[in-house]
Amino acid sequence: MPKLTLLIHCPDTSGIIAAVTSFFHQRKGNIIYIDQYVDLENQTFFMRLECEFNHQISFDDVKAHFKKDLGNPYKMSWHMFGAESKLKMAILVSKYDHCLYDILGRYRSGELNVIIPLILSNHKDLEPVAKSFNIPFYHIPVLKDKKEEAETQQLELLKKENIDFIVLARYMQIISGNLIKRFPNQIINIHHSFLPAFAGAKPYHFAYKRGVKIIGATSHYVTDELDAGPIIEQDITRISHSHSVKDLILKGRDLEKIVLARGIKLHLERKTLVYNNRTVVFT
Amino acid sequence: MPKLTLLIHCPDTSGIIAAVTSFFHQRKGNIIYIDQYVDLENQTFFMRLECEFNHQISFDDVKAHFKKDLGNPYKMSWHMFGAESKLKMAILVSKYDHCLYDILGRYRSGELNVIIPLILSNHKDLEPVAKSFNIPFYHIPVLKDKKEEAETQQLELLKKENIDFIVLARYMQIISGNLIKRFPNQIINIHHSFLPAFAGAKPYHFAYKRGVKIIGATSHYVTDELDAGPIIEQDITRISHSHSVKDLILKGRDLEKIVLARGIKLHLERKTLVYNNRTVVFT
Amino acid sequence: MPKLTLLIHCPDTSGIIAAVTSFFHQRKGNIIYIDQYVDLENQTFFMRLECEFNHQISFDDVKAHFKKDLGNPYKMSWHMFGAESKLKMAILVSKYDHCLYDILGRYRSGELNVIIPLILSNHKDLEPVAKSFNIPFYHIPVLKDKKEEAETQQLELLKKENIDFIVLARYMQIISGNLIKRFPNQIINIHHSFLPAFAGAKPYHFAYKRGVKIIGATSHYVTDELDAGPIIEQDITRISHSHSVKDLILKGRDLEKIVLARGIKLHLERKTLVYNNRTVVFT
Amino acid sequence: MPKLTLLIHCPDTSGIIAAVTSFFHQRKGNIIYIDQYVDLENQTFFMRLECEFNHQISFDDVKAHFKKDLGNPYKMSWHMFGAESKLKMAILVSKYDHCLYDILGRYRSGELNVIIPLILSNHKDLEPVAKSFNIPFYHIPVLKDKKEEAETQQLELLKKENIDFIVLARYMQIISGNLIKRFPNQIINIHHSFLPAFAGAKPYHFAYKRGVKIIGATSHYVTDELDAGPIIEQDITRISHSHSVKDLILKGRDLEKIVLARGIKLHLERKTLVYNNRTVVFT
Repeated sequence: MPKLTLLIHCPDTSGIIAAVTSFFHQRKGNIIYIDQYVDLENQTFFMRLECEFNHQISFDDVKAHFKKDLGNPYKMSWHMFGAESKLKMAILVSKYDHCLYDILGRYRSGELNVIIPLILSNHKDLEPVAKSFNIPFYHIPVLKDKKEEAETQQLELLKKENIDFIVLARYMQIISGNLIKRFPNQIINIHHSFLPAFAGAKPYHFAYKRGVKIIGATSHYVTDELDAGPIIEQDITRISHSHSVKDLILKGRDLEKIVLARGIKLHLERKTLVYNNRTVVFT
Repeated sequence: MPKLTLLIHCPDTSGIIAAVTSFFHQRKGNIIYIDQYVDLENQTFFMRLECEFNHQISFDDVKAHFKKDLGNPYKMSWHMFGAESKLKMAILVSKYDHCLYDILGRYRSGELNVIIPLILSNHKDLEPVAKSFNIPFYHIPVLKDKKEEAETQQLELLKKENIDFIVLARYMQIISGNLIKRFPNQIINIHHSFLPAFAGAKPYHFAYKRGVKIIGATSHYVTDELDAGPIIEQDITRISHSHSVKDLILKGRDLEKIVLARGIKLHLERKTLVYNNRTVVFT
Repeated sequence: MPKLTLLIHCPDTSGIIAAVTSFFHQRKGNIIYIDQYVDLENQTFFMRLECEFNHQISFDDVKAHFKKDLGNPYKMSWHMFGAESKLKMAILVSKYDHCLYDILGRYRSGELNVIIPLILSNHKDLEPVAKSFNIPFYHIPVLKDKKEEAETQQLELLKKENIDFIVLARYMQIISGNLIKRFPNQIINIHHSFLPAFAGAKPYHFAYKRGVKIIGATSHYVTDELDAGPIIEQDITRISHSHSVKDLILKGRDLEKIVLARGIKLHLERKTLVYNNRTVVFT
Repeated sequence: MPKLTLLIHCPDTSGIIAAVTSFFHQRKGNIIYIDQYVDLENQTFFMRLECEFNHQISFDDVKAHFKKDLGNPYKMSWHMFGAESKLKMAILVSKYDHCLYDILGRYRSGELNVIIPLILSNHKDLEPVAKSFNIPFYHIPVLKDKKEEAETQQLELLKKENIDFIVLARYMQIISGNLIKRFPNQIINIHHSFLPAFAGAKPYHFAYKRGVKIIGATSHYVTDELDAGPIIEQDITRISHSHSVKDLILKGRDLEKIVLARGIKLHLERKTLVYNNRTVVFT
């Protein structure tokens, strides 16, 4: 059965829901998911819809009509996805392996509907992990005075492999503006604090110093400003005075793994929409 | 501005969303909330919708047309509520006061959009609490061999005050079938365990004995089977071996208060729908 | 049965636990609680101990010997409390009533082992709440150019009533250095964010703007630096893009109530120790 | 530096803490962790202690003296562990791979201080996973009428490899009384519900049917009664009416992984003590 997923945002006005649902009803589609949200402050309408058909449809035809009948008249920014094509995800790592093991374990056990053409690192340490999961590993060192060269190599590789989006699985390098421009809202980072608290380096050390009673992790899309991009998902765990910085690092690993995995899944399932540096997350 | 809330469930079929949203669009209504859910197993469709109008409407007229155009053709079970009328809530208590204080505090600080015509108890202990909040208090003792008499008195009182729904705020008596029949899915109980674990009496004692690491509380609609009605809300808190039964009772108080308050609010905001002994909770 | 609670911190050295426990064993005391913590970085030892006696003891005598035998030799900073005396707590409020209702409800239902000689406010709005709970209410306006006068009045009142510690239950004024000096680590504030994120004014507005997926509340001791004092307790709740600032404010109320109540209880039970702007919380 | 960990339970009496801490102080040991708990109902004392020495000690000598001076006089049940020896863990699996991937990922990234001599299964499906992590895999089919044979083979293998404890990582067979007797409180199972709710088969199906708003997972030691052994750890996640059984199964996977991993870690760090079918978990 053909199935499609639709994401919309547009200026809010009366009748959009009726118009969109009627569009699919006329094509004998069965709407199996609909959720919408109105940002009243900005008078903006957001919608996610899944529709199944029990007859063949021309996807291109549906798209063309949608554009003419709804997309253009309502000034929509919209994306329509078929179920067929898997996204291609690149994983960037440095030396920490826990997020990588977690992603690859989920991938192998069929939890992530994705293709992983490559793992890319500025160090060689995690090559054996990639090998044991049979994923191509590329080592591109990032040297202090040759950052641009490294970046050029990275971009070529990502292009060659037709990468759709990038996951920074505790990649300990700051991403350049070029890469961000090439993958807008397509680079997912995991930061090991409940942002905006403890942005930047060594969040566990600062959390310890401040004496917080909870620590967190945040997955977010990468933008030019460090650790300030749209937040996809956060979670926390309780700590106490008795936990050392080392304990926080250990306790935080599970948080990082889960919050990153949830972020990746939401992205894969086309459940996120970015607007005004915030995410709309349809669940 | 007139506003209405609509709750529907009906056999699932194609085009319901389009039909309903078009109905309100034609009346120049602005849909500010829509959520739907399909129980695939039972082929049943559920929907909650809020619609605002920036012109006067005849509520009765809308209802009549909705019935004719949609309710009947789609075999809907549906309820349409205007924003104007507050529900009337009776609180039943015995001797525990923490839930009562919590509800009345929320009521006085404007958090609960409800009228509380009366507090009813089988004991006199909490009369001063009712008095300090200026709520009429009725003492109807429930004696072993005169349960029916007490119940008759209760029913008369509830009828006289036009009570819409009942909250059992740690009321330590089993509710009779008569009362349940008179208030179907309109009696909210708080049970001090994460049901279905530890149904019945003394859940904290059994939780201690079993050595669980989490305790919970459950708010649910009362049905004929004890602690087996549709669950509205649950929450939990962590405990350890070092907590005695007394500690569990103390720790559980905050859970009971919050889980009951959330249940009451969901009910007041018409966000719950009961079906097959489960609740659909629109949030 | 006499019972005492002991709080210690001192330079870490070998044998402290043995020395302290032997001290009470020699006096035929029964240690019913012991917990200790070593801050390895600062080589500092912390301990909390509860001891019961099934015979009469002279509390003063125990204290004198403890000082001579242990306190002085080990260079301890220590406090020993008998069970007899209740602390006196002042509540400061402005116009928000939810935390006040919560504290007073807990107080009346016997959950807080404390005396509340007074509620003090810069506004008259909450006088009826105080009255309904039979607690004296004092209105001391804080005018822009007469802050010092107000403060002098406050200090006199707190002194006259022998107040031990102060709770700021959403008191919307910045506390002066004088008051803080007079009550070091004895003023508990509730801040409506997971500090250090969103310190200062309007945290819910900033949380909305940043698009966080969790909001929090923090109870902490007040120090000269705004919202930067030692954290006693924190908790969080999940939110989504669909929650407006107003929703956050409503959802945050329960957090504020619970996190403040937990902070008050930990303080009352002498379970907190402040060191290096962090709290050691024995549980 | 030599280090030891001590676990004790014994009849409660006055002076145990002083006696034990003095014992180590006399040997110039530095107590870096102490926690104790008294089960008042059963008048039983529990203690966990870690002690470091900055000089060489004879571990056997310390044990012999401890037995004579404290173990016997106080009628202690006690265990003293040196830091040197790693435990040997066998993993039993059937066809589900998510818990296995999680454990092996943690093992490879150095999070679990353990030796894994073998993975044992009644099916061949997960052999490739074992291989990719270079762990010996044994396939012992469990046929309906030849269960005892299979068990004999299992026991031989476990004995040959000197296995200390067993982890059932979603092993879909009921463990025999023989195996349980051979490994008392040394077999850790993960059950996919918040026990005691939904013991037995298909807990997610029953959770869906009951309409609970939270699901959970429980790691526990295996005893003769199914899913009724001492609970080590539990955790939960929120669900809603909109989640199908399949959704619950997917959402539950992360819970199962984390709750099992926590159980394994607590066991490895000798932080659990079993008494009266409950665990004392020192943290």
